Amino acid sequence: MLYLVGLGLGDATDITVKGLQAVKRCSRVYLEAYTSILTVGKEALEEFYGKQLILADRDLVEQGADEILKDADVTDVAFLVVGDPFGATTHSDLVLRAVNSGIPYKVVHNASIMNAVGCCGLQVSSCLRWNIKVKEQSIENMMRGKKIYEPPRFMTVSQAADQLIQIIHRRREEGAELGVTEDTVCIGLARLGSDEQKICVGTLRQLVSCDLGGPLHSLVVTGQLHPLEVDMLRINAEPTALDHLSMIDSSTYSS
Amino acid sequence: MLYLVGLGLGDATDITVKGLQAVKRCSRVYLEAYTSILTVGKEALEEFYGKQLILADRDLVEQGADEILKDADVTDVAFLVVGDPFGATTHSDLVLRAVNSGIPYKVVHNASIMNAVGCCGLQVSSCLRWNIKVKEQSIENMMRGKKIYEPPRFMTVSQAADQLIQIIHRRREEGAELGVTEDTVCIGLARLGSDEQKICVGTLRQLVSCDLGGPLHSLVVTGQLHPLEVDMLRINAEPTALDHLSMIDSSTYSS
Repeated sequence: MLYLVGLGLGDATDITVKGLQAVKRCSRVYLEAYTSILTVGKEALEEFYGKQLILADRDLVEQGADEILKDADVTDVAFLVVGDPFGATTHSDLVLRAVNSGIPYKVVHNASIMNAVGCCGLQVSSCLRWNIKVKEQSIENMMRGKKIYEPPRFMTVSQAADQLIQIIHRRREEGAELGVTEDTVCIGLARLGSDEQKICVGTLRQLVSCDLGGPLHSLVVTGQLHPLEVDMLRINAEPTALDHLSMIDSSTYSS
Repeated sequence: MLYLVGLGLGDATDITVKGLQAVKRCSRVYLEAYTSILTVGKEALEEFYGKQLILADRDLVEQGADEILKDADVTDVAFLVVGDPFGATTHSDLVLRAVNSGIPYKVVHNASIMNAVGCCGLQVSSCLRWNIKVKEQSIENMMRGKKIYEPPRFMTVSQAADQLIQIIHRRREEGAELGVTEDTVCIGLARLGSDEQKICVGTLRQLVSCDLGGPLHSLVVTGQLHPLEVDMLRINAEPTALDHLSMIDSSTYSS
């Protein structure tokens, strides 16, 4: 059996009891380590599970799937994914390979950024997720065939806000009418679901100068807000962001 | 401390370890029992947690929030919600009341239908959720002030497909051009995340006659599908649904 187990978003204890039971019965446990990360590392997970983990980087998952699936028809193998197992296309691919090899699979779901983002108080939201650069080669090294990898990089809310504003400027110069402007209320979220979770509410312009600390970051662009959503945004906002909120034209908040 | 704990979607073991630890340390534990249900009942949860649960119906949550929050500034109280705690507006309301009463709160996230639906293999989806009718009064009894409640009702995929087709017919008569027709490929899902999970793929018309068994059901309406999504739909489909899939005009599947 191949178990695809979601680890949730915070730390080692965010695994479900069902997921933990599956991990404990598996003979090999892989930790997918490139589409997302927890606030704790491999060692903390190994200690909590009482199991050795095999780090599965992009190379292993995309080119070494046979190795992951080896003997999974006669023994139990777990593939651990931060968040929910079906956040990234790569894992659909692993499931298809299992099915084509006659290996049964089970999914143990968990929270992902796509639903946990609801904690900021919005009912409907478009939550931007961006690429996490882990174990990427520089173009130079790739062309030389050198397996030398760049240090991991994570886009911050500040960088994302800055890039969005650049896009807005460019599109405006092209004459486009945009629903999102520098004054659109946005929400920056960091390390959601962990004790070090941080949420910052402000205009897109204001978020350029917000520092939410370590990874992972998410950015929510709001549309028309319901009064209850505004109330929730207020309590979740950082003290400085509350100043920002009051600076925003209240006409933005028609429900 | 008020803990809002997501229970996930399947059975008692879908709670996270962090959530279980919170439940065990609380002096009162409420089970929200009207926005969603698990495949197991209150008794199975009580046995698994080793704790008595207080059933929180709509009346208690919407009118008796003070009772739930009583002494939560000096003792720990848990409020358990199937799926993730922020699926329903009602729970934002409880959080706001806690904050206004100076009661700190923590959210323990979990899988909800909004992200677990990814297991059907679609990357982007609009997933229809509909009202669950639990402890509802008939209009007659409401007008007479009688606290007599109707038996719980859950909409099935078949009923939802039938209603959507009725809407499509009505809108067509009104001259509307619709993106969704009777031949749009849809996915019916039942008891997602449990061992009794069932997924059925077919056209909206075909789903009218599909029986997915007990609650809860969800319906996904697909748009343009990627070839990888089609592959995933095939493996998740019931044998009869696979027949349906092959009956569908393959031009629907341009990527």
